[in-house]
Amino acid sequence: MPLAPSHVQQLAEVRSRILNLLLSDKDLVDTLLERPRRESPAEADIHQQQVEEIKQTLPLLHAADIADLLEALPEDERLALWRLIGNDRRGHVLLEASENVWESLIEEMSDRDLLRAIKPLDIDEQAYLAKYLSRDLTGRLLTSLDPALRSNVLEVMDFDRDRVGRIMDFKLVTVRADVTLATVQRFLRRKKTIPDGTDKLFITDKNNMLLGELPLTDILLNTPEKRVFEVMNNRPTSFLIDDKAEDAAGAFERYNLISAAVIDARGKLMGRVTIDDVVDLVREENDSNIRKMGGVNPEEDVFAPIRKSVRNRWAWLAINLCTAFVASRVIGLFENTISQLVALATLMPIVAGIGGNTGNQTITMIVRAMALHQVEPANFSFLVGRELGVALINGIFWGGVMGGITWAMYGNPELGGVMMLAMLLNLLLAALMGVLIPLLLIKLKRDPAVGSSVLITALTDTGGFFIFLGLATIFLLH
Amino acid sequence: MPLAPSHVQQLAEVRSRILNLLLSDKDLVDTLLERPRRESPAEADIHQQQVEEIKQTLPLLHAADIADLLEALPEDERLALWRLIGNDRRGHVLLEASENVWESLIEEMSDRDLLRAIKPLDIDEQAYLAKYLSRDLTGRLLTSLDPALRSNVLEVMDFDRDRVGRIMDFKLVTVRADVTLATVQRFLRRKKTIPDGTDKLFITDKNNMLLGELPLTDILLNTPEKRVFEVMNNRPTSFLIDDKAEDAAGAFERYNLISAAVIDARGKLMGRVTIDDVVDLVREENDSNIRKMGGVNPEEDVFAPIRKSVRNRWAWLAINLCTAFVASRVIGLFENTISQLVALATLMPIVAGIGGNTGNQTITMIVRAMALHQVEPANFSFLVGRELGVALINGIFWGGVMGGITWAMYGNPELGGVMMLAMLLNLLLAALMGVLIPLLLIKLKRDPAVGSSVLITALTDTGGFFIFLGLATIFLLH
Repeated sequence: MPLAPSHVQQLAEVRSRILNLLLSDKDLVDTLLERPRRESPAEADIHQQQVEEIKQTLPLLHAADIADLLEALPEDERLALWRLIGNDRRGHVLLEASENVWESLIEEMSDRDLLRAIKPLDIDEQAYLAKYLSRDLTGRLLTSLDPALRSNVLEVMDFDRDRVGRIMDFKLVTVRADVTLATVQRFLRRKKTIPDGTDKLFITDKNNMLLGELPLTDILLNTPEKRVFEVMNNRPTSFLIDDKAEDAAGAFERYNLISAAVIDARGKLMGRVTIDDVVDLVREENDSNIRKMGGVNPEEDVFAPIRKSVRNRWAWLAINLCTAFVASRVIGLFENTISQLVALATLMPIVAGIGGNTGNQTITMIVRAMALHQVEPANFSFLVGRELGVALINGIFWGGVMGGITWAMYGNPELGGVMMLAMLLNLLLAALMGVLIPLLLIKLKRDPAVGSSVLITALTDTGGFFIFLGLATIFLLH
Repeated sequence: MPLAPSHVQQLAEVRSRILNLLLSDKDLVDTLLERPRRESPAEADIHQQQVEEIKQTLPLLHAADIADLLEALPEDERLALWRLIGNDRRGHVLLEASENVWESLIEEMSDRDLLRAIKPLDIDEQAYLAKYLSRDLTGRLLTSLDPALRSNVLEVMDFDRDRVGRIMDFKLVTVRADVTLATVQRFLRRKKTIPDGTDKLFITDKNNMLLGELPLTDILLNTPEKRVFEVMNNRPTSFLIDDKAEDAAGAFERYNLISAAVIDARGKLMGRVTIDDVVDLVREENDSNIRKMGGVNPEEDVFAPIRKSVRNRWAWLAINLCTAFVASRVIGLFENTISQLVALATLMPIVAGIGGNTGNQTITMIVRAMALHQVEPANFSFLVGRELGVALINGIFWGGVMGGITWAMYGNPELGGVMMLAMLLNLLLAALMGVLIPLLLIKLKRDPAVGSSVLITALTDTGGFFIFLGLATIFLLH
């Protein structure tokens, strides 16, 4: 999709203009949805003009832009915009949109409309939508397909979302090893088109086994008389169909790939992965990592209906409430101590809070190091030692500061000492747990990013209250 | 760098093997650093073999892999591995490594060694290292350059890290519009090489103004007699040299670009951006987003020396301590209330904690929607209303549950009522602030991801204590 030079800013303006038009004028939305409305002829004119404006600017936007717009609109406005999108683009927009958008849009489409919308898409994209759209269209999609493609689609649909098989596509050009580059060029010219994102052709034998790859640049740089096997790369980077998609993305990034072959266990060429799918994957992965750490369900979006958000979030709230309840029961053990020295109730959140902060810093670092495969049994004790060292220095310094302030405020040196010691111990606990929790989650084969923040906060709260009130009971009650 | 099929897993094993060898054997490290050591001849033999093994497997690894390894090693082990890396690869490794790694490695290199290491790199990469390495090598680098390149380098060095100018490179092929495709092919064959990541040539006039772009596939698909202007794309996607790099990355993702031209304000071709730089940028950006939300300095890594981590983290700790202190003073206001009903001290962390959880969920969602440019003044009230709606439902339900439990535990229905009302109000506060804080940070031209989590927790803690203890003072003290 070509853009005039530095069109990027202009596109952002177009998006924001459409968003504001739809959001600020209920009548415009009603016009689009063909609902009864009370408007003067002059107003109706303006609305017609606005509809025209949106219709004319929509083609400037990429499907991903339109999907973002749909996501940012409430239900009615979303449907209104959807009506303005042509059937030829709806499939691409659906592909880029989130599940929330799917649900609200698809309700008003018939199965036939839906099939028509996804028809212009690539096979892998059709399979993806057919499988995950709320209505099961797999059967109807399959019967509408060319029999040769049917088995391909069935194969792709079998893979989990996190496997290479799910991001691969079938659009590739293969050539034989013994032809000349001139023949390859003639072959390409006769084909007239070449799939998007093609930077190389794949070389296969008659059983479709992958022999090598031929970059387009090699066709251009070598003399036409050369044969393919003389110039091809015969150690191509390739992926197994059930490699993890995440690992494939890492390889694309490390080795600066633009496309790469996907083979089965015997070395047969199955399809290819292209950089644009990888970029989408990296973005999605990071998006969901950030959400996981914030305790938000990856499917939620900020414009989803309230009932959906309530459902998405209740589990995290329930877990949090349980951990808070446990922490509260720890305090309950010391009600007698607190009733003798109410200042303890005032000071205890400081001990807990500072532990949570340190614990979360440590866990963020460790989860990142794990994602980079930098944590090995051999450097484990180094990591623990390092985090404990940082906590020790911070604990002595900041514990000393808070201990001094406490002493000055309450005129009670013993209370100051308990404050200092409690802060130091809770920081050490936080650092230790910040290393251990992600390691434990990995051992349990769980994603260390999910919930580790909730766990560490629960531990540092409970631990902080217990340490502080326990020390106070020992040293301050006479 | 070609890989045998599905080499990805094998490479991970090589990395882990090298890491474990270096971490588990101090004598091996001393051997590499040529330090005096006590080892039997048999042991010395083993160490020599291990050195050989590492030497032989290192070439299998990509520069990014080696940088990750260096990052994962403590000081001595890092230097030992560095000695095994040839001068031809050191520059590429430095480019991929973090600042912490730079500091420790560069200490032991002379200026001459350093210049020799960065010499094999591209101009933009040399400029980047020269500018950010701790020693200022810019002068020496410039004098060693071809005068024609010097002005290019100076220009690139002027740009901030977040501008397109900093990720662009100068390696591109330009052709004139009036030549035939056959001529283009002859020209390429005579050149013999073509820069990595080239998917298109750029068409310029004699003043180097950008006229269009010619995808390699178009050269292959069209007959050789056609002239460039007949087949070129004359509305090429291009970026201004001081566009934000982040926006350019977004465009690459949306429009599935592999490379794109960079022009100056008058339309003169300056360089190009390629997808591999964009992928690196996206990964770095996301990495730093995750760290920012965890309250960790983006420069910190988990293997940095303790003193560095203490320095990096003290600011967040100080801020956290201040906010905790404020929350604690709010409790202090109600010491009289607490001394009459100690159960309040036990229950108050629940109210505060649940607010923090909800606030962080909301803020995560809003920050994400902002990054996708989905938040506009026009849908602002919709967002606030939606988050308040979610909070209202959760507050009534979970507040009711906790109110009931409190009533049952303390046999005090009024205390249960206060608990329920406080939870509801604090959830509403959290939702409101979760929307307002990132918006406020944006208005203040700050990054909404940095510190918003600390701010929301501070507000929900302080607010939670105030609401709960305030309601208790009003309704429970007779």
